[in-house]
Amino acid sequence: MMLNGPNLNLLGAREPELYGRTTLDALEADMTARAAEAGAELLCVQSNHEGTLIDALHDARQSCDGVILNPAGYGHTSVALRDALIACERPAVEVHLSNIARREPFRHKTLTADVAIGTISGFGVLGYRLALQALLAHLDALGEH
Amino acid sequence: MMLNGPNLNLLGAREPELYGRTTLDALEADMTARAAEAGAELLCVQSNHEGTLIDALHDARQSCDGVILNPAGYGHTSVALRDALIACERPAVEVHLSNIARREPFRHKTLTADVAIGTISGFGVLGYRLALQALLAHLDALGEH
Amino acid sequence: MMLNGPNLNLLGAREPELYGRTTLDALEADMTARAAEAGAELLCVQSNHEGTLIDALHDARQSCDGVILNPAGYGHTSVALRDALIACERPAVEVHLSNIARREPFRHKTLTADVAIGTISGFGVLGYRLALQALLAHLDALGEH
Amino acid sequence: MMLNGPNLNLLGAREPELYGRTTLDALEADMTARAAEAGAELLCVQSNHEGTLIDALHDARQSCDGVILNPAGYGHTSVALRDALIACERPAVEVHLSNIARREPFRHKTLTADVAIGTISGFGVLGYRLALQALLAHLDALGEH
Amino acid sequence: MMLNGPNLNLLGAREPELYGRTTLDALEADMTARAAEAGAELLCVQSNHEGTLIDALHDARQSCDGVILNPAGYGHTSVALRDALIACERPAVEVHLSNIARREPFRHKTLTADVAIGTISGFGVLGYRLALQALLAHLDALGEH
Amino acid sequence: MMLNGPNLNLLGAREPELYGRTTLDALEADMTARAAEAGAELLCVQSNHEGTLIDALHDARQSCDGVILNPAGYGHTSVALRDALIACERPAVEVHLSNIARREPFRHKTLTADVAIGTISGFGVLGYRLALQALLAHLDALGEH
Amino acid sequence: MMLNGPNLNLLGAREPELYGRTTLDALEADMTARAAEAGAELLCVQSNHEGTLIDALHDARQSCDGVILNPAGYGHTSVALRDALIACERPAVEVHLSNIARREPFRHKTLTADVAIGTISGFGVLGYRLALQALLAHLDALGEH
Amino acid sequence: MMLNGPNLNLLGAREPELYGRTTLDALEADMTARAAEAGAELLCVQSNHEGTLIDALHDARQSCDGVILNPAGYGHTSVALRDALIACERPAVEVHLSNIARREPFRHKTLTADVAIGTISGFGVLGYRLALQALLAHLDALGEH
Amino acid sequence: MMLNGPNLNLLGAREPELYGRTTLDALEADMTARAAEAGAELLCVQSNHEGTLIDALHDARQSCDGVILNPAGYGHTSVALRDALIACERPAVEVHLSNIARREPFRHKTLTADVAIGTISGFGVLGYRLALQALLAHLDALGEH
Amino acid sequence: MMLNGPNLNLLGAREPELYGRTTLDALEADMTARAAEAGAELLCVQSNHEGTLIDALHDARQSCDGVILNPAGYGHTSVALRDALIACERPAVEVHLSNIARREPFRHKTLTADVAIGTISGFGVLGYRLALQALLAHLDALGEH
Amino acid sequence: MMLNGPNLNLLGAREPELYGRTTLDALEADMTARAAEAGAELLCVQSNHEGTLIDALHDARQSCDGVILNPAGYGHTSVALRDALIACERPAVEVHLSNIARREPFRHKTLTADVAIGTISGFGVLGYRLALQALLAHLDALGEH
Amino acid sequence: MMLNGPNLNLLGAREPELYGRTTLDALEADMTARAAEAGAELLCVQSNHEGTLIDALHDARQSCDGVILNPAGYGHTSVALRDALIACERPAVEVHLSNIARREPFRHKTLTADVAIGTISGFGVLGYRLALQALLAHLDALGEH
Repeated sequence: MMLNGPNLNLLGAREPELYGRTTLDALEADMTARAAEAGAELLCVQSNHEGTLIDALHDARQSCDGVILNPAGYGHTSVALRDALIACERPAVEVHLSNIARREPFRHKTLTADVAIGTISGFGVLGYRLALQALLAHLDALGEH
Repeated sequence: MMLNGPNLNLLGAREPELYGRTTLDALEADMTARAAEAGAELLCVQSNHEGTLIDALHDARQSCDGVILNPAGYGHTSVALRDALIACERPAVEVHLSNIARREPFRHKTLTADVAIGTISGFGVLGYRLALQALLAHLDALGEH
Repeated sequence: MMLNGPNLNLLGAREPELYGRTTLDALEADMTARAAEAGAELLCVQSNHEGTLIDALHDARQSCDGVILNPAGYGHTSVALRDALIACERPAVEVHLSNIARREPFRHKTLTADVAIGTISGFGVLGYRLALQALLAHLDALGEH
Repeated sequence: MMLNGPNLNLLGAREPELYGRTTLDALEADMTARAAEAGAELLCVQSNHEGTLIDALHDARQSCDGVILNPAGYGHTSVALRDALIACERPAVEVHLSNIARREPFRHKTLTADVAIGTISGFGVLGYRLALQALLAHLDALGEH
Repeated sequence: MMLNGPNLNLLGAREPELYGRTTLDALEADMTARAAEAGAELLCVQSNHEGTLIDALHDARQSCDGVILNPAGYGHTSVALRDALIACERPAVEVHLSNIARREPFRHKTLTADVAIGTISGFGVLGYRLALQALLAHLDALGEH
Repeated sequence: MMLNGPNLNLLGAREPELYGRTTLDALEADMTARAAEAGAELLCVQSNHEGTLIDALHDARQSCDGVILNPAGYGHTSVALRDALIACERPAVEVHLSNIARREPFRHKTLTADVAIGTISGFGVLGYRLALQALLAHLDALGEH
Repeated sequence: MMLNGPNLNLLGAREPELYGRTTLDALEADMTARAAEAGAELLCVQSNHEGTLIDALHDARQSCDGVILNPAGYGHTSVALRDALIACERPAVEVHLSNIARREPFRHKTLTADVAIGTISGFGVLGYRLALQALLAHLDALGEH
Repeated sequence: MMLNGPNLNLLGAREPELYGRTTLDALEADMTARAAEAGAELLCVQSNHEGTLIDALHDARQSCDGVILNPAGYGHTSVALRDALIACERPAVEVHLSNIARREPFRHKTLTADVAIGTISGFGVLGYRLALQALLAHLDALGEH
Repeated sequence: MMLNGPNLNLLGAREPELYGRTTLDALEADMTARAAEAGAELLCVQSNHEGTLIDALHDARQSCDGVILNPAGYGHTSVALRDALIACERPAVEVHLSNIARREPFRHKTLTADVAIGTISGFGVLGYRLALQALLAHLDALGEH
Repeated sequence: MMLNGPNLNLLGAREPELYGRTTLDALEADMTARAAEAGAELLCVQSNHEGTLIDALHDARQSCDGVILNPAGYGHTSVALRDALIACERPAVEVHLSNIARREPFRHKTLTADVAIGTISGFGVLGYRLALQALLAHLDALGEH
Repeated sequence: MMLNGPNLNLLGAREPELYGRTTLDALEADMTARAAEAGAELLCVQSNHEGTLIDALHDARQSCDGVILNPAGYGHTSVALRDALIACERPAVEVHLSNIARREPFRHKTLTADVAIGTISGFGVLGYRLALQALLAHLDALGEH
Repeated sequence: MMLNGPNLNLLGAREPELYGRTTLDALEADMTARAAEAGAELLCVQSNHEGTLIDALHDARQSCDGVILNPAGYGHTSVALRDALIACERPAVEVHLSNIARREPFRHKTLTADVAIGTISGFGVLGYRLALQALLAHLDALGEH
């Protein structure tokens, strides 16, 4: 599952100097194709609603092997999302388009980072592609055990 | 009204060593029966959506005499939920399944605790049964005045 | 757009000594009339759901010239709402019914205030009327350039 | 009384991109005219001296029904000015030309805000006109009781 | 063991609007009777002396199966009491008569809460009765293993 | 009642450059005489035991009209002593021999100061004589109502 | 010298439930008489201007043996006043009419307290009389050396 | 004097993986023997009562040349114990059985450490033997001057 | 302009071990002569009144090319003085006689330092001479552009 | 340049459950090969000396197009290393083997993160491979402009 | 290995009233002799270079059974040294010549203390001898298992 | 000795808009010439290695009368450098090229400032020339005593 949080539906249109010009549709299409190349199926979800993101993580518990998560604004404030990520019991890679260490102090950390495998921050949409590699490698390593 | 917040739909399945093995359905059935024994009717609501929980508290303003509230992750972050609890003008008992004083620091306090009558934390699903007693006793005492 | 956040559907009924006795319906009718007098059309939205407020701001990006925003409880906690306000790229005036400097410390600041033009706090429903003037004057000044 | 604090004598000349190009004389003339239109008399005082501002508030205790106050730099540091505002026992509206939430952290709050009726921040000299409306409305409402 | 800390000897007389009108004698008699009903023996100790409370917990290590503890003022400051509670190696339920989340900030947390099973706060003397149920249920559950 | 806390039994011997050379016996004799002159009886208690100080305040509830309290080291740390001072429901004047504003930061405030009438700090044993005047004046004023 | 800071010219009129009903004139007359009884001359100064208070302390350096200082609002914020008190090289007794430990947190400490001999807080105008005794006793003790 | 604070009477029985298996009796016997070997007499005191520890330090002022102090839980909270250690005017060596830097943050520092000669932390009962050497060496060095 | 803040009129007399023995008159004469040597005219102002210092900076806006500023106690607290320094739009060099990094923590930083060109701290009256060099060099460099 | 900080020479041997079993030699060989495949040359430097790392970054200023940096322990404390990274004026990707959000709080942020393009944390040695991709993509994008 | 950090090469010459008059050479000779007496070989290293200390700890991983470490100034700031101590996987005893609890606040804790067995602070060079005993005893105890 | 810390070898090349265009070689040549003019010999040292800077200060203890120190990045973090400055027992003047009060918060203070005579910040390379004057004047004044 690739799960994108609030305002990411505006990707490509909103503050392109910060977030780039790729649209969410293009990103989802590209990522789905890359996942398919690697023999994986990618389920794409985006929502501005915290509860919908939580519901999606609950679904992932049944239907997915791992999660690529860009929690956007909810990552900095939502204990409930953190709890949902723990509850879904699936390995997750956290992605941020911009380098959050350069942003306002309240963006420097997220409540989900320490329950994910790791974080990739600052590389724009390329970060999602790196995250896919990291997630697949992690799942492979698990599979070997 | 018994109002359960985000991720509690997974009760029994999610981290059972922390939250126990009783499912939400079983909890709601048991609590409804106990309320009935005490001559009270219990309305059970659970949602992963903050707005839905707020709507429910607004409904409670009309339809209920009191609230048993487990705000889960939203309790630690939601000023809006706190405002809804004040706005519903009904006595509430706050319940936590785990002992929040043993958890991460951001779970040690909630924004709703001081607008509830009191809090019961750490006793698993038994906490709900104690909360029911406390709420009914409080309503009885009010009724006597 | 006049966008009202959580619990404001109870305006007039909830804590009237703090928030006044005007209902939301009355406020929206009055504001719509005043906007019309000034030759402007006012779209009124209220929601208890954070995601719905974000969606509304995304719509405002297309359909509105400016926003009167009372973020209520979400203003103090929601990075996602702040991001949506930035993303909508429309000038906004923030309104608070009560004087937030007199309330609990967690209400003293909002995450949206510094991305709005300015803030009006403490004057009850009159604050909305002042906000309308301020927003129209701001749009006029923009129009002159 | 319209009471303007330190450095506001330079209004129009000092950092016009931040504070606008209207001079203090023009502002006082405009506000006096607007007050007169509303049947009120406006006493205008500006001083760079904290003690003189305090003296003025003591005078307001006798001679005025309300205060429009821009405490400028003293608002962020002066307990004495706060005490004078309490001591003058007159309703006050606090005005800031710039949006203080966008400025340095030490400007985000004032010691006078919670003893005023409310605050208007970020709308340049228009803020004073809104403050006059708010103050007159407040005095009217008091008069009705 | 039911262990009550400093000033609880004045229960019923001291600030009754906060702590209720039941005296300590009445509480101890009531609790002893309820314990007896449940087939348990209750040892009641109250002291204003921190050292005596510590001694009592050391005794509990030998003579009791569990502890109902209202540490009162010492709960907020005493590392030694916390150490004694750990050292006694008996499950404990912490009780507070008033809702400590509504009190002064230094009362919001205790040093004993995270080494107890859980906490019940805000229900007056009813809290002790709930604590007895919780403690007996906990001991039953332990006994089943 | 004149209640002296821990280490004050060493008065006159311990750090005389800080606390002066008057012994506790001499202080108690002098104060008793001065109280008698004013037609009052003075009960003198000193203890190094927090619990004994609490017990004494409980006694004062029955036997005394007011308290002169030097809580010494316990003043900075004891919530239980604060609770006892509230519980005794007698006006108290707090005394410190040394100027606590000049000492280590943890001595700058006490938990009892805001539940006393007022504080006298820095004048050595003279402070007790001033406290006696203040307490008697307070009791006189109460008596007049 | 008895030096009274900002807003104390309103003594007796301003918030009498907090500061009492004695006027500044009456206080100065009473204190001058008491000083005269003790064979001392009292110079009385009050100002709302920080600079005037500093000037007065500079004068005290030449003309006075000691200072009774109620710095009022400036005590909590003025490094310059603290410097002036040090620079005047005269022993000072700090007085507060109200119990500052009961007020807002920013009133709990002053920048002058640790460069005064000691502080008397909470006893209304009686505090000035106690301060006079403390100052004269201090000067006597100095004179004996 | 070897002075042991609260809960150390349970040494050997309480959390042996943290504090070791030597009992207090055995420790006192061993230390007394080692002191005797070095030509010194050792007075052993243990109490769970803060006041008793203070009384003991007051006695040490008369009867002992130095103190080996394990303040246990009181070390982290007791200003009164710190004052007693200063008041006894005897060199002291502070000992902790466990490495307090590895424990909860509130155990990382003590209020007595800076008024002792030095601290030995983390070596179990061996720490007391090292403390004896350090104390005797310190007394020897003092004796040489 | 050389602008000296509160208490600097006592230079040479006040705490000479900290501030040196040169009087303000001598400093102003010496600095005026040195400025004249460099072909510059120096206007000297000292005041204990914050408002007078602000007025002087407003004058400097018209009459001076740069400012040597020792804000003394006001530097640590006055947002108004900072605003005046910005408003005067003249380059300034900040001087402190003593090494403020060695003083009380509240003296470690000033509100004016970051709006000056730079700061010279700790060299007594020599610091003013270095400041003159730095200011003239800065004005020369500006003149070259 | 791939620059590895202190203790990374022990890679593979030190805490393998945290950092993995690949040695530094193997990592450098693998990365060099991968860089070569992409047509780039990789210079590998590791040092335990902060100054040597700074020297290396100064060299990179001349000899390299970009930097893959694992600052290890120095990243959390070294302003000098941050300055060197700015001074080298080359784009950098920061890598951490472990998920620093799960480690001790002092590891949660680095002083270099906001002057790098972005950060990859938590994926073991795979993180270096992702960093190489990110760096090359960044250099490609720069080259296109 | 006895590892001494920065500035300890000046031992005996630098601030002897704080650190004593024994030189590093004498200390190393004495410690080597004492180790030899106990049948152990002591490797002595001192460096002012953080990297050299880290290298030495890496060597200790191969060549030593334990470490006596005085990290001096680096102990308070170096995450890298902490990492090296963990990486060397050898038990360490931390020594400080002065009582760090009496020094500046930034010296009160070290980053290495919680990864050492324990700490000895305040006893001058005697502290090293005590550390040797503690280390040998620890190694003996390990050997017995 | 003129001692320059990390990254200053790049002076003139690195961020010239912040640090100026003079190279380190030119600065050292200029300063050496100016020192020679004043009859003093200047030893110039620059290093990116903290240990080398410490070694240099140790050398200064023997070979120099005073130190001009720009600690650069190490000034904000190095307790060891501070200790070395104390240990060298030579008067030092601290210099910063940029105005550190305008930079990131972690640059606002240094650990060396309070053990130097004073600080000169914000005047570019001119600051070194002012520092030389200040140091020579300080040494002259010492020589006169």
